[in-house]
Amino acid sequence: KTQRIAVIPGDGIGNEVMPEGLRVVAAAAAKFDLPLSFQRFDWANCDYWQRTGRMMPDDWFAQLQDFDAIYFGAVGWPALVPDHISLWGSLLRFRREFDQYVNLRPVRLMPGVPCPLANKQPGDIDFYVVRENTEGEYSAVGGRMYEGTERETVLQESIFTRKGTDRILKYAFELANSRPRKLLTAATKSNGIAISMPWWDERVAAMAANYPEVSWDKQHIDILCARFVLQPERFDVVVGSNLFGDILSDLGPACAGTIGIAPSANLNPERRFPSLFEPVHGSAPDIYGRNIANPIGMIWSGAMMLDFLGNGNERYTAAHDAILRAIEATIADGPRTPDMGGTADTTAVGTAIAAAL
Amino acid sequence: KTQRIAVIPGDGIGNEVMPEGLRVVAAAAAKFDLPLSFQRFDWANCDYWQRTGRMMPDDWFAQLQDFDAIYFGAVGWPALVPDHISLWGSLLRFRREFDQYVNLRPVRLMPGVPCPLANKQPGDIDFYVVRENTEGEYSAVGGRMYEGTERETVLQESIFTRKGTDRILKYAFELANSRPRKLLTAATKSNGIAISMPWWDERVAAMAANYPEVSWDKQHIDILCARFVLQPERFDVVVGSNLFGDILSDLGPACAGTIGIAPSANLNPERRFPSLFEPVHGSAPDIYGRNIANPIGMIWSGAMMLDFLGNGNERYTAAHDAILRAIEATIADGPRTPDMGGTADTTAVGTAIAAAL
Ligand SMILES: CC(C)[C@H](C(=O)O)[C@@H](O)C(=O)O
Ligand SMILES: CC(C)[C@H](C(=O)O)[C@@H](O)C(=O)O
Repeated sequence: KTQRIAVIPGDGIGNEVMPEGLRVVAAAAAKFDLPLSFQRFDWANCDYWQRTGRMMPDDWFAQLQDFDAIYFGAVGWPALVPDHISLWGSLLRFRREFDQYVNLRPVRLMPGVPCPLANKQPGDIDFYVVRENTEGEYSAVGGRMYEGTERETVLQESIFTRKGTDRILKYAFELANSRPRKLLTAATKSNGIAISMPWWDERVAAMAANYPEVSWDKQHIDILCARFVLQPERFDVVVGSNLFGDILSDLGPACAGTIGIAPSANLNPERRFPSLFEPVHGSAPDIYGRNIANPIGMIWSGAMMLDFLGNGNERYTAAHDAILRAIEATIADGPRTPDMGGTADTTAVGTAIAAAL
Repeated sequence: KTQRIAVIPGDGIGNEVMPEGLRVVAAAAAKFDLPLSFQRFDWANCDYWQRTGRMMPDDWFAQLQDFDAIYFGAVGWPALVPDHISLWGSLLRFRREFDQYVNLRPVRLMPGVPCPLANKQPGDIDFYVVRENTEGEYSAVGGRMYEGTERETVLQESIFTRKGTDRILKYAFELANSRPRKLLTAATKSNGIAISMPWWDERVAAMAANYPEVSWDKQHIDILCARFVLQPERFDVVVGSNLFGDILSDLGPACAGTIGIAPSANLNPERRFPSLFEPVHGSAPDIYGRNIANPIGMIWSGAMMLDFLGNGNERYTAAHDAILRAIEATIADGPRTPDMGGTADTTAVGTAIAAAL
C-alpha cells in the first residue's frame, strides 16, 4: 500500500530543512523500494495567517485526515503572530484533533557529537522520553477575574482524564517492557501540585501492576531534571505529563548535545489519524534565510516516520536504520553546519547524508 | 535588638545537619558579636504526625509568629506519611501563612566542587533563581469527577494573582538592578499554557518598564532548562512561577555541582512574619542515621539567614561573608563527606567550617 505523506514546511527554517528531509527520505524510499507519495501544503504558517487571519483553512481536517503521516517543519514567527496563537492554531490542533497522544523523543549521545556533560561516552545516554501530548497542563480553560484591577486573579485549569493518562502510561510501560533494561521512571510533582499529581501517581501504580517485569519509580520533576544532568545513565524510558514531558524532552537532548538535531514523533498509535513527525527545534527566526540550519533533526524525524509507517515491515525498518547510520557517519566524518562547528550549509549536509545511505 | 531564631530540625538528616548549622552560626555570632537567641521546636516532622495525627500543633502560628527567622532542616518521611500531606501540613503552610513569597536560591560554581558540565570554571556560573513561593501551580484547588470510573476526570487549578505576581517580579527586577550585569530572564510557557502564562508575560513586560537599566527576556521553560545546561554563563537573575522556579532551582544547583549543598531562603521581605532558611536537599531517608549527610547546605542557609537578619548591618554581612569563605576553604582543603568523595562525617565537616571562621 502506498503511504501518503502530507508535507508542511511551516515557518522559518522549517522551509530550509524540509527539502533535505525529503531528499533523504526519498533516497531511502528508492533504495528500499518503499511506496511513498508526497503532497505539500502551504498553510499552518504565519504568512498564511497574515494573508487570511487564521493559521489553516477551515477544511484542514478533511484535507489531511486520510494521510498516513504529516511531515512537519516548524511553526511560529513571534514578530508576526504571538506564539500561543500560531501554535494553538496549528501544531497543537493536529496533536489534539488527530489524537496524537504520544510524543516520543529519543535521547541519545551519538559518536562525534560534543556532549555538554563531563565524562560521558556514547552508550552512556540512551533513553526515550514519552510525553502525553493532548491534555494536562496545556489547556485554554480558565480566565481572568477582575481584569485590569489590583484584584486581578487568573485561573488556569489543568485537565487530566483517566483515558488520556492510562493510554500514555500503557504506551510507556509497553516500550519499557520491550527494551533490554525494562526501566521506567514517571515524572510527578505530587508533593506540590496537590490534586492532579497524587492522582497521576495512583494511575502509574495501577498500570505498573500489569507489567511485573518492568522496574519503575516515580520522581518529582525538580529532582528528575537534576538527575538528567547528574546521572543520565540511569534512564531507559521516562514518562511525563504534557508539561513535564515537554521540559524533559528538551532537557534530555540538551544533556546529550543533540538539542539542535533531535527528532520527535507525535503518534496516534491506533493509526486512525495521521501521525506527525517534526524536529524538536523551532523556526529559528534568528538564523532563517541563510541556509545554515542543521537539517539532521528533520532527517532523523523522517527516519522515525518511516519506522512508524512500516509498522514492523522490514524494508521500512531497514530504511530507518540506514538513515540513522548515514546521520552518524556524516556527523563523525562529513560536512557540518555552523552549530556543530563546521562551515557547510543545510543543503550540503542533507546531500551528504543522502549520499551516505 | 536580639534576633529570635526558631529552630526546627524536622525529619531524617535534618536532625543531623542542624547541629552543624547551629555550631557555625553560633561561632559566627560570637566572632561578630551578633545578638541571637534560639528556641527549638520538635514538631513539623513525621514522628509528631505519627503521635498526633497532624504535622504541627494548632497554635503553631502563634508560637512562631514573633520570631525573626525559622531555621529549618528538612521535612518528609514517605514511608510514614505521603509527601503531599507532610509538606502541605508544614513547610508549605509556613511559606503561605507567613507570606514568604520569595524563594531565593543562589547558583554558583565554587572552587573545589566538581562540576557535572564540561569545561566550566568557577566564575562561569553565578546567578540567582527567584521563585514565587505562595501561589500559582502549587494549589489544592480542584478535584475528581466520575471518580473511580472510566470517565474519571481530574481538574487542577493554578491560581495567579496580580499582587502575587507583581511582588515577585518586583523583587527579581530589584535584585537584577542591584547586580553588575543587570540581566533578568523570566521563565514562561505561554506557547502551551494558554491562559495564565500569556498573562504572566504581560506582567513581566509591565514590570520591566520600571527598570530601564535591566536587560530582560522571557524564555519558555523547556528551552530555558536546556540553556541551564548549555549556556549557564548567560544567566544573572532568573525569575519563575512556583513550579518553574522549583524546577530551575534544583536544576541550577545540579548544573553547578551543588545540589547536595545548595541553600535556600524563603523570605517575607516586609519582615511582617518570620522568614525561613533551609537547605535545598530533603530528609534523605536512605542515608539517615549514619551521620554522613553533608551539612554545607544547612550552614550556607545559616549564612543567608544572618545576611537577611542584618538587613544591611555590616557585622551581619561580615558574618555571612566569613561563613561563605569558611565553606569554600573547607571544600578546597578540608574534610569532606562521602557525597563529595571524602570519608569525613557530618560533625567533622561542621567542626572544620566553624574552626575556619
Ligand atoms: C518538598 C517540596 C514540596 C518542595 C517544593 O517543591 O517546593 C521542595 O522541592 C523545594 O523546592 O523546597
Ligand atoms: C512550541 C511548543 C508549543 C511545543 C510544545 O511545548 O509542545 C514545543 O516546545 C514542543 O515541544 O513541541
